[in-house]
Amino acid sequence: MTAQTLDAYGSEVRDAVARTRDVVAALHAELPRWGLVVWTAGNVSQRVVVDPAAGPGPDDLLVIKPSGVTYDDLTAAAMVVCDLDGGLVDGEGSPSSDTAAHAYVYRHMPRVGGVVHTHSTYATAWAARGEEVPCVLTMMADEFGGPIPVGPFALIGDDSIGRGIVETLQGSRSPAVLMRNHGPFTIGKDARAAVKAAVMAEEVARTVHVARQLGEPLAIAQSDVDSLYERYQNVYGQA
Amino acid sequence: MTAQTLDAYGSEVRDAVARTRDVVAALHAELPRWGLVVWTAGNVSQRVVVDPAAGPGPDDLLVIKPSGVTYDDLTAAAMVVCDLDGGLVDGEGSPSSDTAAHAYVYRHMPRVGGVVHTHSTYATAWAARGEEVPCVLTMMADEFGGPIPVGPFALIGDDSIGRGIVETLQGSRSPAVLMRNHGPFTIGKDARAAVKAAVMAEEVARTVHVARQLGEPLAIAQSDVDSLYERYQNVYGQA
Amino acid sequence: MTAQTLDAYGSEVRDAVARTRDVVAALHAELPRWGLVVWTAGNVSQRVVVDPAAGPGPDDLLVIKPSGVTYDDLTAAAMVVCDLDGGLVDGEGSPSSDTAAHAYVYRHMPRVGGVVHTHSTYATAWAARGEEVPCVLTMMADEFGGPIPVGPFALIGDDSIGRGIVETLQGSRSPAVLMRNHGPFTIGKDARAAVKAAVMAEEVARTVHVARQLGEPLAIAQSDVDSLYERYQNVYGQA
Amino acid sequence: MTAQTLDAYGSEVRDAVARTRDVVAALHAELPRWGLVVWTAGNVSQRVVVDPAAGPGPDDLLVIKPSGVTYDDLTAAAMVVCDLDGGLVDGEGSPSSDTAAHAYVYRHMPRVGGVVHTHSTYATAWAARGEEVPCVLTMMADEFGGPIPVGPFALIGDDSIGRGIVETLQGSRSPAVLMRNHGPFTIGKDARAAVKAAVMAEEVARTVHVARQLGEPLAIAQSDVDSLYERYQNVYGQA
Repeated sequence: MTAQTLDAYGSEVRDAVARTRDVVAALHAELPRWGLVVWTAGNVSQRVVVDPAAGPGPDDLLVIKPSGVTYDDLTAAAMVVCDLDGGLVDGEGSPSSDTAAHAYVYRHMPRVGGVVHTHSTYATAWAARGEEVPCVLTMMADEFGGPIPVGPFALIGDDSIGRGIVETLQGSRSPAVLMRNHGPFTIGKDARAAVKAAVMAEEVARTVHVARQLGEPLAIAQSDVDSLYERYQNVYGQA
Repeated sequence: MTAQTLDAYGSEVRDAVARTRDVVAALHAELPRWGLVVWTAGNVSQRVVVDPAAGPGPDDLLVIKPSGVTYDDLTAAAMVVCDLDGGLVDGEGSPSSDTAAHAYVYRHMPRVGGVVHTHSTYATAWAARGEEVPCVLTMMADEFGGPIPVGPFALIGDDSIGRGIVETLQGSRSPAVLMRNHGPFTIGKDARAAVKAAVMAEEVARTVHVARQLGEPLAIAQSDVDSLYERYQNVYGQA
Repeated sequence: MTAQTLDAYGSEVRDAVARTRDVVAALHAELPRWGLVVWTAGNVSQRVVVDPAAGPGPDDLLVIKPSGVTYDDLTAAAMVVCDLDGGLVDGEGSPSSDTAAHAYVYRHMPRVGGVVHTHSTYATAWAARGEEVPCVLTMMADEFGGPIPVGPFALIGDDSIGRGIVETLQGSRSPAVLMRNHGPFTIGKDARAAVKAAVMAEEVARTVHVARQLGEPLAIAQSDVDSLYERYQNVYGQA
Repeated sequence: MTAQTLDAYGSEVRDAVARTRDVVAALHAELPRWGLVVWTAGNVSQRVVVDPAAGPGPDDLLVIKPSGVTYDDLTAAAMVVCDLDGGLVDGEGSPSSDTAAHAYVYRHMPRVGGVVHTHSTYATAWAARGEEVPCVLTMMADEFGGPIPVGPFALIGDDSIGRGIVETLQGSRSPAVLMRNHGPFTIGKDARAAVKAAVMAEEVARTVHVARQLGEPLAIAQSDVDSLYERYQNVYGQA
């Protein structure tokens, strides 16, 4: 099944695929490191972008984890390349069974360059109750700009999950959605940003859970949420 | 106590025993890695199969952890070989005190090739209340096909534990049973599959516990549980 | 942006800055080690002291973490030097966005030589409810001499956070304050002491949380709290 | 302060001290490994026994952790030797501030060869409520033979803690006592057995806590507790 159709692409695309495989393989190590996954659960993907300044083009590809492979075996070479309909383009294994959902997001959200899915414990627990995580922490205002919303229940196998993700996130500042009875999906400008959102989603889901175990967290005024979000998105980090 | 009767077997059996010792020793490292055991608790066994295509024969053996030995010292050589009545066949130590339960399962469930036992925290907590884990997560529908059932209270020392495991699992899709006041036992086609079931049983026991701490998880329709289970058992992973 | 104005200081100050960079870089590793931070959250700073016997002078500087950098990349060279108004003096990156709060503490609490900020889960959960951690453990009496107090809600961007920390801690034995809806800030005679206070604040916040989940912890008499605190501050550790 | 009076002992005693220092230093690493301690909290001690067959003599010594030293620095050479009144006999540092409690236990329980003290989270949470851990798990029946009892509130500085430990454990099968508002102390025939008891005490304190969060654990009949305890103490492990 190796190298089915990647030869049909030019050398710039093939170079970009190689770089993306390195990035996606390395970022998978962050999921067990931060306790977001067990065994073979979870996956990271990134859109293949030839020229970051130009942004995505009509020939977009994505790189994603192979299905059912353990985190010890996730080398760059093991990463799988698919087109944005989820069809296999290059790789020795079957793509993650969540590939259709990732591909749907890339097709419908052109500014999204990375997608992550986990079953991290606390985020999934909120998802099991179908309850959004309320924005009661300054770090949540910073990162999510409000609550983490809940998406619909959706079966795997067609576009239902992808559509649920896109419809929920298009009306939200949050880069994370809790798919009902399932778990979080997160997005970002690239895979690294989506991994960060997955880490932070579990962190705030856990902290708000713990806070609520012994009472009600205090609300943060909407104007304060807004000003924290504005500042963090524009000032934090290195220029 | 070394090599009591293994010489009585042919070289194919002895080779299969050596391979099985390697596998079982390596898989023990997964139990502390995923936080399922402390100190010397827990054990993994695998049926010795000479020809995987032919399946188990009348001379079946099993390889299991020695009793009371720490995870740092679990080399392949330290693994103990027993017959399916739990009698010691080869090894320098006493077999795990749970060997009789493992052997009972192999005797009565011919398609089972691996058994794991732990006292993992959340699964054992459900077992202490004698309460099954309800199937409210898509990953539970995938892996367990329904709730994780509870087995009876049983004392160690005769066939009670083994019988409780077999009677509970024979009527269930679940590869895991929560023995009352005791902890989970899991089964699989080989030890690796049984270890995966032990990891996933703790994962879903924890996540559903956390979900229920702040309310009631939403139910998943039985038809959706069925279709998730069907798909996962037949499609997921590498061909 | 490298070495803007550090050349204006004498060699003793430059040597002290180099030593402080080593200390602050090494202490950052303690935050993920003890599970207090994820991703790039949290920061440690230390006042630059030329002569520890003489204490802080009018030319004080502080060394702090750069903004938005991961814990893997926190070398001594990456640490940033600021004056006590938070202005950048030396370093290749932007200082932590919490620098103004650290600087305010150093300006108003001359005996404080180290400040730490985290969003550690349990301490932040108490902060989300605006609830102090009651002193019901002998280790809390030892380290905190009473409850861990709550500071006001304050937005980042001016002196509000720093003022909230100082006003809360000046009337307390505790080296830790839980800033409302935000997280803990801790102080100490140097950065190591402030890191210890951050570790212990999370430890007691977690233990008292767990205790209260199943009932009410027993109170410790104030006179016993006082005698434990006195003894620990004066006798514990190496002379 | 090095080698004050150890020269007064014969070479057999000095050899036994050296062996005990190695054992006690190595066992300290188990406390952070199993998550029982943070920073410098917790301590392990072992009685110095020249001839294990003969048992303790009138000149008994103990080896214990120095006070306020981090786990990274706990070499064999750093371990401190005291007499059974807690007086320093050999070592470069001050002995643990809990030495008087350890020494009291050795003086009054001649068959105890090891003592461990931690502030492990769940055991300490039960201690904060002054509530014993009920015996609702077969592993608790195995290891503790019944509930883990609570000892009195006691201030550090005289024999109160030691007396509380001894009075509570003399009437119990349990090798662990939860000192009120303080934390667990455990005993064993040597330091390794006491460390195991500390690990298991936290394990069962956590599991029973989790079980009780969502309902009442099922009781185990006293006769079943008795038979599990008998069997485990006499059959488990290697001969």
